Amino acid sequence: MEIRPIAFFKSPVAGKFGVPRQSGIAPDLRGEVRFVAPYDNPDALRGLEGFDYVWLIWEFSLNGPSANLTVRPPRLGGNDRVGVFASRSPFRPNPLGLSSVRIESIEPDGGIIHVLGADLADGTPIYDVKPYVAYSDSHPDARSGFVDGNEWTALKVEVPSVLAARLTDEELCGLKQVLACDPRPQYIDDPEREYGLYFAGRNVRFKVKDGVVFLISL
Amino acid sequence: MEIRPIAFFKSPVAGKFGVPRQSGIAPDLRGEVRFVAPYDNPDALRGLEGFDYVWLIWEFSLNGPSANLTVRPPRLGGNDRVGVFASRSPFRPNPLGLSSVRIESIEPDGGIIHVLGADLADGTPIYDVKPYVAYSDSHPDARSGFVDGNEWTALKVEVPSVLAARLTDEELCGLKQVLACDPRPQYIDDPEREYGLYFAGRNVRFKVKDGVVFLISL
Repeated sequence: MEIRPIAFFKSPVAGKFGVPRQSGIAPDLRGEVRFVAPYDNPDALRGLEGFDYVWLIWEFSLNGPSANLTVRPPRLGGNDRVGVFASRSPFRPNPLGLSSVRIESIEPDGGIIHVLGADLADGTPIYDVKPYVAYSDSHPDARSGFVDGNEWTALKVEVPSVLAARLTDEELCGLKQVLACDPRPQYIDDPEREYGLYFAGRNVRFKVKDGVVFLISL
Repeated sequence: MEIRPIAFFKSPVAGKFGVPRQSGIAPDLRGEVRFVAPYDNPDALRGLEGFDYVWLIWEFSLNGPSANLTVRPPRLGGNDRVGVFASRSPFRPNPLGLSSVRIESIEPDGGIIHVLGADLADGTPIYDVKPYVAYSDSHPDARSGFVDGNEWTALKVEVPSVLAARLTDEELCGLKQVLACDPRPQYIDDPEREYGLYFAGRNVRFKVKDGVVFLISL
C-alpha cells in the first residue's frame, strides 16, 4: 500500500536526538501539524474544535524500516529484549509512529493545528490525523507490561541565567522539558561527557551529573 | 511511503456490512491477529502478555482512498458534514484505520493474538501492532467533539430459539453484539425492509422495528 503525507510536523526539536521518547512526557512542548494542499483547507478540520486530542500517524523518517523481530527498550536499561510488537520502538517493519497530542488551538485558514506534547521531530511526515474519541481510545486501567513499574524519572535542569535570557519563555519552557526527558543516548552515564542537540535553531550543549542537566552553551 | 501487511485479521464478520463502527462497541466479539512470515515468530510478541490492549493500524481495504475533505458521520444522522480529520470515517486520503482491541490470549508459536471488540472485517490487512501504554494513550476526560452528546443506542436483539440452537454460544454472543450495533445502512429506517450480513459463514437475514432486531434466517 502506498501512502502519501497529508501534513508535516513543525517542531523546535531538529534531528532525533532530543525528541521526547513518547507523547505527553514534555507536555508543554509546542509544535504544529501543517497540512499540505489540498488538505490545508478549513473544511478538512471542521468540527475538530470540539476535541481535546488528536491522533497522529506518522513516519519514523529518521530511521528506515527494520527487519529485527526484537528491540531493547530504553526503559529496560537497554539490556533486555522484547518483541517489536510489544514495544513502541521506532525500529519496526513498517516505520509508523502513533501519538496522541493535545490540541492547543486550530488555525483553519492556514491548515495548521497547534499541539502540545508531541514526540515528533521537525519535518516529520504525517499520514493521518484522527480525533481522539475517549469512549473507544481511553483505557485508563490497562496494564502496560514492562512499562509499568519501570517509570521514567525526570531529570532536573539547571540553566544559567545568562543563557536563559537568550530564550523566549516558551523556548525555555520547551527546552527544559526536552532536557528533563533525558535525551542522552541509552546506556551512557558519564558526568564529564558533553552532549548536544538542536533546539529552536540553536546548538544546545549540556552535561548530566547525578540526575541534573547543566546547560553549557546555546 | 510503501507499507506491507505484517498480519491479517480473522473475524466472523465478512464484508463491511455488519462490522462494528468503532472498536469496543461489540466488546465480546472475538477475532484474531494472524501474523505472516517472518513475523509469525514468538520472538516478535515477547513481553506482550503484560499488556491488556494493543493498537492495530490497518487498511480500510473495503474502501479505497478518498479525496473528499468532509464526511457525514452516521452518529450525526448522516445529515451534517464534518472535516475528514475531525472524523474516524473510513473514507480518508490514506485509508488507515486505528483500533485499540483487548487481548484475550496470545499464541506465540502460531503467531496469533486473540482479541476482543475489534471493528475489522475478515481478511483486513494490518500494518502495525503496538502495545497500548496507558500513561501516554489514555485520556479519559478528553472532550470528544460531536461524539459527546450523540451517544449510540444499542438495539435489542430477538433470536428465535430454533435459530439460536444452530449457533455455538460464542457465535450467538458475537452475532447478537454485532446486530445490537445497528448495522443498517445510514438514514434507512424501514421496518418492513429485510437486511443481510455474513457472519461465521452464514447469510444472516433480519428486520429492525422500534429498536428491536428480529432474526429471520441463518
